[in-house]
Amino acid sequence: MKVLIVGLGLIGGSYAEGLSKKGYEVYGIDQNEKPIQYAIEKGWIQDTLDSKVTIINKADIIILAIYPQAILEFLKDNQSNFKKGQLITDVCGVKSSFVNKATLLATPALYLSHHPMAGKEKIGIEFSDCSIFKKANFLITPLKNTPIEAIKILDQIARDLEFGKVSIMSPERHDEMIGFTSQLTHAIAVSLVNSDHDCDTVNFIGDSYRDLTRIAMINENLWSELFLENKTALLSHIESFEEQLDILKNALKTNDQIKLNELFKTSTQIRRKMEK
Amino acid sequence: MKVLIVGLGLIGGSYAEGLSKKGYEVYGIDQNEKPIQYAIEKGWIQDTLDSKVTIINKADIIILAIYPQAILEFLKDNQSNFKKGQLITDVCGVKSSFVNKATLLATPALYLSHHPMAGKEKIGIEFSDCSIFKKANFLITPLKNTPIEAIKILDQIARDLEFGKVSIMSPERHDEMIGFTSQLTHAIAVSLVNSDHDCDTVNFIGDSYRDLTRIAMINENLWSELFLENKTALLSHIESFEEQLDILKNALKTNDQIKLNELFKTSTQIRRKMEK
Repeated sequence: MKVLIVGLGLIGGSYAEGLSKKGYEVYGIDQNEKPIQYAIEKGWIQDTLDSKVTIINKADIIILAIYPQAILEFLKDNQSNFKKGQLITDVCGVKSSFVNKATLLATPALYLSHHPMAGKEKIGIEFSDCSIFKKANFLITPLKNTPIEAIKILDQIARDLEFGKVSIMSPERHDEMIGFTSQLTHAIAVSLVNSDHDCDTVNFIGDSYRDLTRIAMINENLWSELFLENKTALLSHIESFEEQLDILKNALKTNDQIKLNELFKTSTQIRRKMEK
Repeated sequence: MKVLIVGLGLIGGSYAEGLSKKGYEVYGIDQNEKPIQYAIEKGWIQDTLDSKVTIINKADIIILAIYPQAILEFLKDNQSNFKKGQLITDVCGVKSSFVNKATLLATPALYLSHHPMAGKEKIGIEFSDCSIFKKANFLITPLKNTPIEAIKILDQIARDLEFGKVSIMSPERHDEMIGFTSQLTHAIAVSLVNSDHDCDTVNFIGDSYRDLTRIAMINENLWSELFLENKTALLSHIESFEEQLDILKNALKTNDQIKLNELFKTSTQIRRKMEK
């Protein structure tokens, strides 16, 4: 199986590493020469003199590991090179805003989007590491008329990369949920860190602060796109969160220890179910 | 050096384990018989027939690893047994509300409060593990007239338990900072988890959600006391955090990608300095 990875960053590189180790014939392209050389030296992608068009043409699967707005540009620029029987996919963290357009642009190739729920607070292929995928959630977001064969191919890729649970859902359901579990958490971590006005905080932190704020180290260009592309869902989740924080604040203001206990018991119950 | 640990829970048990391993002669008392037997079997505390009064009387250091409101009760109940040359301390997560009273009640023994910034989302001595202290922050909160000898003893305990940075500050400064790094983070994690209204969330989470919400599994009795005892500082930190979240929300509402990028860059810079 020939796989072309477009965009050799942290995630693209990790796909290249993981898939090449499982015997896929992996090709890679990138705007820059450096990550390509890095991936070739690591043995993660083929060292080839073929042109970009030739590589695109011979790939069975094309994985777009690039920023949301770059996906449609890539599809437009290369539309004439796609062919029947190819599967094109992306790893983007939002879906609804572009998957219909992407599906049209990819024709006659099949388009099926997915989302690997793994990452690091680092940028660039030198931080790639396919072990981040181990047991992570893998989300596949077909449209109504996406053929089952396409889903099967992505499911196999998820297994080969050792992901955990594979879930299938609509792009809208994906964005709704990811607005909560991913974008809201990043919005909270960023706001918490930015409300730190003391230069000595580091001496007062424990693991809880470290864990809670790790994702405040954030790739600003990627995440501002993700936030804006999923604006409606994210705003609604921020508001639900604020309502809960208000309930807690009011319990505190009125010295309502019973209410505080109740809030803590509820959160403990909900969260305990999510332990691995 | 004879150490008495009052309250053999997760933290008290971890002190008993760590200090006994370093050659301290450790005694333990608890409301319940079970944790005492557990600690004796593990070899963490002495197996003795001495009465509680005798043990209190012969201890060089008494470490109170009990809930905030239980500290003053213990001191009142046992006031007549304290003697000159003893040091009494506690591991409580708030300080200002009781340390002046505790210092009076402990007389003629010295009282000096401290805060080990380590823990687990578990309750009970069976989860004790002194390795949680390794490299953690250790805060000592003397009053103006606390003798330097008392600080030196706690500093030595911190070293023997392999804590990292030891910082010395007033109880007020402690509570102000801990309201931010500890209580605010717990308030956020609880509110985030409680704003989850979907039964399928677990399939959509990555490590970021797991890390951010781990502390939503919370000992409700302990933490409602901590929140209420540090109410003013905590409310003010919640409000600063809400202001930052509002700034982010407004940038999102007005599609202000430049502002979002700026917020993300700031949080990345601040947080990166805290990496171990």
